[in-house]
Amino acid sequence: MTFRVHVRIIPRPGLLDPQGQAVEHALGSLGFTGVGSVRVGKAIELQVEAVSAAEAEDAVRRMCDKLLANPVTEDYEIEVEG
Amino acid sequence: MTFRVHVRIIPRPGLLDPQGQAVEHALGSLGFTGVGSVRVGKAIELQVEAVSAAEAEDAVRRMCDKLLANPVTEDYEIEVEG
Repeated sequence: MTFRVHVRIIPRPGLLDPQGQAVEHALGSLGFTGVGSVRVGKAIELQVEAVSAAEAEDAVRRMCDKLLANPVTEDYEIEVEG
Repeated sequence: MTFRVHVRIIPRPGLLDPQGQAVEHALGSLGFTGVGSVRVGKAIELQVEAVSAAEAEDAVRRMCDKLLANPVTEDYEIEVEG
């Protein structure tokens, strides 16, 4: 079976995120109020062949650990589409 | 109320995504098989003050249209945390 998987990779809390700060500032300049804690990271979508959703998630977790995310500076979340 | 909102911004289908192709190729080189259709975009997290989740989503939709996404080349999805 083929699963569509979404990965969200975001800078760890506490780490400086200059891109997030720039976006937050720009949103304020455009008149958006009440916006805070903006973090900018990567969104990755991919299709994975696997026998179950759990196995697809496992495979993508290994991909994150090996290539997609930086474990020192980034957290990731994996979501497998039904 | 403060809502935590996740935005996923991905290159539109049909548009070339060189970063996605590079990731797909790198995953293959690392021995991950059965992976395809890799797309790489931006993940943005932010906190928004709003009276309801629907209003928070509306505000973030306006932010996407004005600043966060490029409507010509990117699609976005918004998810408001409960």
